[in-house]
Amino acid sequence: MRVTEISLSDGRSLTYYDSDETSRRTAVDTRGLGPERPPLGVMRRDPLTGEWIAIAGHRQTRTFLPSAAECPICPTSPGNLTEIPEASYQVVVFENRFPSFAAALGDAQETLGPGLPWDTEAAAHGRCEVVAFTDAHTGSVGDLSPAQMELVVRAWMHRTEALCRREDVRYVFVFENRGAEVGVTLHHPHGQIYGYPYLPPAARTLLDQARDHHERTGRSLLADVVAREIAAGDRVVFADEYWIVFVPFAARWPFEVQVHPTRDCSSLVDLSDAEVGALSTLLPHLVRTLDGVFDAPMPYMAGWFQRPARATSDETRDSRLFLRLVSNRRASDKLKHPASSEALMGAFVSDVLPEAAAARLRQTWAEA
Amino acid sequence: MRVTEISLSDGRSLTYYDSDETSRRTAVDTRGLGPERPPLGVMRRDPLTGEWIAIAGHRQTRTFLPSAAECPICPTSPGNLTEIPEASYQVVVFENRFPSFAAALGDAQETLGPGLPWDTEAAAHGRCEVVAFTDAHTGSVGDLSPAQMELVVRAWMHRTEALCRREDVRYVFVFENRGAEVGVTLHHPHGQIYGYPYLPPAARTLLDQARDHHERTGRSLLADVVAREIAAGDRVVFADEYWIVFVPFAARWPFEVQVHPTRDCSSLVDLSDAEVGALSTLLPHLVRTLDGVFDAPMPYMAGWFQRPARATSDETRDSRLFLRLVSNRRASDKLKHPASSEALMGAFVSDVLPEAAAARLRQTWAEA
Repeated sequence: MRVTEISLSDGRSLTYYDSDETSRRTAVDTRGLGPERPPLGVMRRDPLTGEWIAIAGHRQTRTFLPSAAECPICPTSPGNLTEIPEASYQVVVFENRFPSFAAALGDAQETLGPGLPWDTEAAAHGRCEVVAFTDAHTGSVGDLSPAQMELVVRAWMHRTEALCRREDVRYVFVFENRGAEVGVTLHHPHGQIYGYPYLPPAARTLLDQARDHHERTGRSLLADVVAREIAAGDRVVFADEYWIVFVPFAARWPFEVQVHPTRDCSSLVDLSDAEVGALSTLLPHLVRTLDGVFDAPMPYMAGWFQRPARATSDETRDSRLFLRLVSNRRASDKLKHPASSEALMGAFVSDVLPEAAAARLRQTWAEA
Repeated sequence: MRVTEISLSDGRSLTYYDSDETSRRTAVDTRGLGPERPPLGVMRRDPLTGEWIAIAGHRQTRTFLPSAAECPICPTSPGNLTEIPEASYQVVVFENRFPSFAAALGDAQETLGPGLPWDTEAAAHGRCEVVAFTDAHTGSVGDLSPAQMELVVRAWMHRTEALCRREDVRYVFVFENRGAEVGVTLHHPHGQIYGYPYLPPAARTLLDQARDHHERTGRSLLADVVAREIAAGDRVVFADEYWIVFVPFAARWPFEVQVHPTRDCSSLVDLSDAEVGALSTLLPHLVRTLDGVFDAPMPYMAGWFQRPARATSDETRDSRLFLRLVSNRRASDKLKHPASSEALMGAFVSDVLPEAAAARLRQTWAEA
């Protein structure tokens, strides 16, 4: 794989990932965006929960469902000068032009830790990146060849490693929102990477649970979860030597799966070649499986849990890599809306029995 | 106020709330639903978060956006035998026919506490009720007269008291989902009450934060929050002798307000007559204000935080009543979707500066 990093005309960085080691990426961003960048957002801590909220007012004006002729993630053509200067590409990662949070260059570093006063506002450090999965405007992860998917996985690994080296990043979250039903504003197949400047709530909660489990049992929580799912069997959708896909015991969403490596591995960066290869076949198959349930593109949110940046030894011990993918579609014409119970009280009510969802996915998997 | 409790034909209870003490409610449910009830759901604890998830497979078949002629919350008429036997009513509360969770009659009580094993399933105890705000099929809280709203508030108080006495209820959550944009399946103006059999995550988190704040400062967290908002002023939408309405410092949603009493009051049941009266004018005005922002019905989720049932002395000290109302509308034609960052990582990104939202609401409040 060849990695080529360039700067866009406003100073943001863009990286090409090419399978051909001899690729040369020399096209220049001629848009002349200039150094002006949207005003930086802030992060505020909610005294009622202790959680940080990123506030990014400039995002209200972000591009909203443009046509292919105006898509900012397509390769540049004479009529459409896009974020990506080349006329074609394989996989590209670039800094989001409308980031949810981002460090100002040269800003002093601040720590967003739990020790700060309870009504704290801080500059919104961190990093928001876009991952273009292909230069084709239409399609989905389900359409990616294993070779193309592998390039995406290797880009995720490379970015995880790069962002973990940044002082203002505490957790690298690689994710994809798919479908207008979950709020996607660009149809071009793409994912995102957030380098949070703090441990996000779900990562912190999982680490707390894993630490408690380890203190109580001496064992790894996530390894125990995987072992239990293998033993139970009725929620398993697919398993091979390297990966297991199952519907979790206490699924919150109508369709929800987790994808775990079969061995103890705590970060994308630690995946072996064999694991990357197997994953690159598995993920497109999984998306085709989901699309098969209602014979229509399944909206979903999918993201990788992994070891934090600058992990303590306990955090490393208690981390284990997995993908969580959830869909809000509960019937071909109905969506699940997390309403007051979920959004205000954090108490989920699911309409679908996990074992029934798993049976349906196993059947669709075989046909996908 | 007169309170009349009856039984529906399948054994569920229904309560009429009437302002006229001489009202007689004698109509009988003639639908002959029989004692069969939907299969009870289960609650499963998610080992990754420690949280309980209610799984209610029968809810997939629940009534979905019926017309007025088939509305189950309208009064009974010759052509539509509804949940409410009377031909007219003021305010009614009844057990949900498709509950997210509910105790089987005669079931042994179980405690859903943090001490249980980490992969626990339990019968889904608790209680789910529907609150019909009016017998008119159309309209909203914004259309309720202060007298009608007061009857709703008094029904909330009565139900909070009644559910707090149940052994299988640990927290009473009075809430309203409004608008198909947040998943409402019945248009008739109504709210809901969940009697959770455990402390739901957001209530637990808030109590933890309040306890920490008290240990650090000796003061009430929520009283300090209210005092800070009064002092800052730029997020206050409305205030009178009894209530204050503000956009919180770290709002998560495009439009989000909290409504707090100005004195230390920890439960709906403790509200004074004067507070109930002021609230009954305030709440319809607030909904009209929200509808004025985009000159269209604003979808929202609104719910009351209050003292748990069977509160410990610390929980009573750390509880303070308030309403949290959030809307997912970020522009007249756009919704905020909590996607991967929010739904998977719990990390909110807001597109709207709280002070800007408050300024807009202040302006609309004056015109509503």
